[in-house]
Amino acid sequence: MTEAVSRPTLEAVAARAGVSRATVSRVVNGGDGVREPLAERVRQAVEELGYVPNQAARSLVTKRHDAVAVVIAEPEARVFADPFFALQLRGISKELTAHDNQLVLLLTEGRADHARVARYLAGGHVDGALVFSLHLDDPLPGLIRNAGVPTVFGGRPDWSDGTPGPLYVDSDNRGGAREAVRHLVDLGRTRIAHITGALDQTSAVDRLDGYRDVMGEADPRLVVESDFTPGGGERAMRELLDRCPDVDAVFAANDLTALGALRVLRERGRRVPEDVAVIGFDDVLPVAEEADPPLTTVRQDIEEMGRLMARLLLRGLAGRARGAAPADAAVSSVVLPTTLIRRASA
Amino acid sequence: MTEAVSRPTLEAVAARAGVSRATVSRVVNGGDGVREPLAERVRQAVEELGYVPNQAARSLVTKRHDAVAVVIAEPEARVFADPFFALQLRGISKELTAHDNQLVLLLTEGRADHARVARYLAGGHVDGALVFSLHLDDPLPGLIRNAGVPTVFGGRPDWSDGTPGPLYVDSDNRGGAREAVRHLVDLGRTRIAHITGALDQTSAVDRLDGYRDVMGEADPRLVVESDFTPGGGERAMRELLDRCPDVDAVFAANDLTALGALRVLRERGRRVPEDVAVIGFDDVLPVAEEADPPLTTVRQDIEEMGRLMARLLLRGLAGRARGAAPADAAVSSVVLPTTLIRRASA
Repeated sequence: MTEAVSRPTLEAVAARAGVSRATVSRVVNGGDGVREPLAERVRQAVEELGYVPNQAARSLVTKRHDAVAVVIAEPEARVFADPFFALQLRGISKELTAHDNQLVLLLTEGRADHARVARYLAGGHVDGALVFSLHLDDPLPGLIRNAGVPTVFGGRPDWSDGTPGPLYVDSDNRGGAREAVRHLVDLGRTRIAHITGALDQTSAVDRLDGYRDVMGEADPRLVVESDFTPGGGERAMRELLDRCPDVDAVFAANDLTALGALRVLRERGRRVPEDVAVIGFDDVLPVAEEADPPLTTVRQDIEEMGRLMARLLLRGLAGRARGAAPADAAVSSVVLPTTLIRRASA
Repeated sequence: MTEAVSRPTLEAVAARAGVSRATVSRVVNGGDGVREPLAERVRQAVEELGYVPNQAARSLVTKRHDAVAVVIAEPEARVFADPFFALQLRGISKELTAHDNQLVLLLTEGRADHARVARYLAGGHVDGALVFSLHLDDPLPGLIRNAGVPTVFGGRPDWSDGTPGPLYVDSDNRGGAREAVRHLVDLGRTRIAHITGALDQTSAVDRLDGYRDVMGEADPRLVVESDFTPGGGERAMRELLDRCPDVDAVFAANDLTALGALRVLRERGRRVPEDVAVIGFDDVLPVAEEADPPLTTVRQDIEEMGRLMARLLLRGLAGRARGAAPADAAVSSVVLPTTLIRRASA
């Protein structure tokens, strides 16, 4: 059941840097007495191989817990209802396990519980945190910064209080949306609608911006606000058909929303894609493949996003352990490209 | 999003016990100076109302973290694939949140990570643990006992090393299985098969025992071992049809297994229930309701099991906080009844 994971060894780092194991160990564990050009060579080998020192050796000198918190800023029920989160957790779990770090998932019933989550993070129970699905005005990022816990965000956080840029992993939401809408234009569609995600999240705003990059402000009635859920997609599609009966294409902000839209189109006797073409976002399987008809969608590599978040955090922590300033830890935010996956719906 | 939860107050306990708030507070927080009959009246009111003292008051004297670990002894991927776990977590999350305790879910890639989980539990990061889906020979329960972490199990653990009985919440798996098989007998079926769950789990063994209570050892070829997954159910159903083409009923150890069996029966052109009647176990929605045909199944109240696990643990912790021996904490294991839910498949 456990996937075999090849983890770079101390030996591999020593071989790559052309130094002894003892030298690698001294550098990695923050000890002194290694000349700078040599130490730098070791650090470079560590970065290139993605090496993270093993627990026993490290805990002697670094007081680490070898535990990383994951906070999904959504109620527990939604975490289990949207396969997006399971995929992101899968990537995180594999990466943390490969480095013998414990995944500590902090579940909540909603935003009212975020102060308690921040207390737990501040309580010295984990080395860092991976936080995703943030909503605007959520006090969580501020609370986490106050707690001084190293954090990597999933999705670009949106704040402008002068704090230096947060570390995050995101998809090219705007570019992906543009590609989807251009595809609908290329199909000859002219009344192209957009069902948005929750607009207090940057991913939803970016996808709306991508839609507008192609469509301009054309007909504002073609944009309906929704919330990334199948039920929200149904409501939005009904509203859309009432407002603009001539709609001939829908770009939905995610696959679950597209599912809801497909259901309503079927109910109202509109054929997909003949009458209305539909495109989603995410490519969460089996949702997209088993949709009726199978869903054309913008794929983001969600599992890889999770893996990268964990990797960035562990590297940052390793950098701190050897006393590097965060800026020198060879970590920076990542934006992954998306791919349009063509199936039957558009 | 957060469900409104009415939480018993200190005042309510004082009123019920007929004492002052200060007296309740002293008893609850383990202080001395309260005469025994009075203290006993307070404790009784606490138990009756299910009162758990609030964090601020308690943490002053008890050094609690107000955090409870949840460990599901399955790989992360299975946790998200089987709605059973989501439901149990839902109940746990609601109960812990109502008492302002943080749910700390410790995910793993498999059994190889259980030593790390035990280290985290022993590290003083949580007040107690809720552990479910244990498999025989898993070192986890032993590791947890060594760590000295108060624990409530979901499902009866199976060990016989002389340790006093563990605290657990379970369903009446054997009784539920008996009711399912009796229903198949009442329908006039004579070649009734059983697709088992993972037989290194007590729930699977108990359901098999329930089947045998009704069927005896009739025809051992009618029992096929499986693993609680849809894929396992498919494999088992194929084997069963090859071994016993005259099978006219199947009691599957859970709904996901039944789904796999239904798929194979459809594939092989057997009508359900006309040719083969099928019964599942769990009643996880929407799986059971949306099955084709809708699934007759044995319902266990999974969310309530989660809620009760959390409640037992919090009461036990409150009891320890005021210095009660575990046996006096008015907590004991609970076995919940099951209900046969009749739909179209049997």
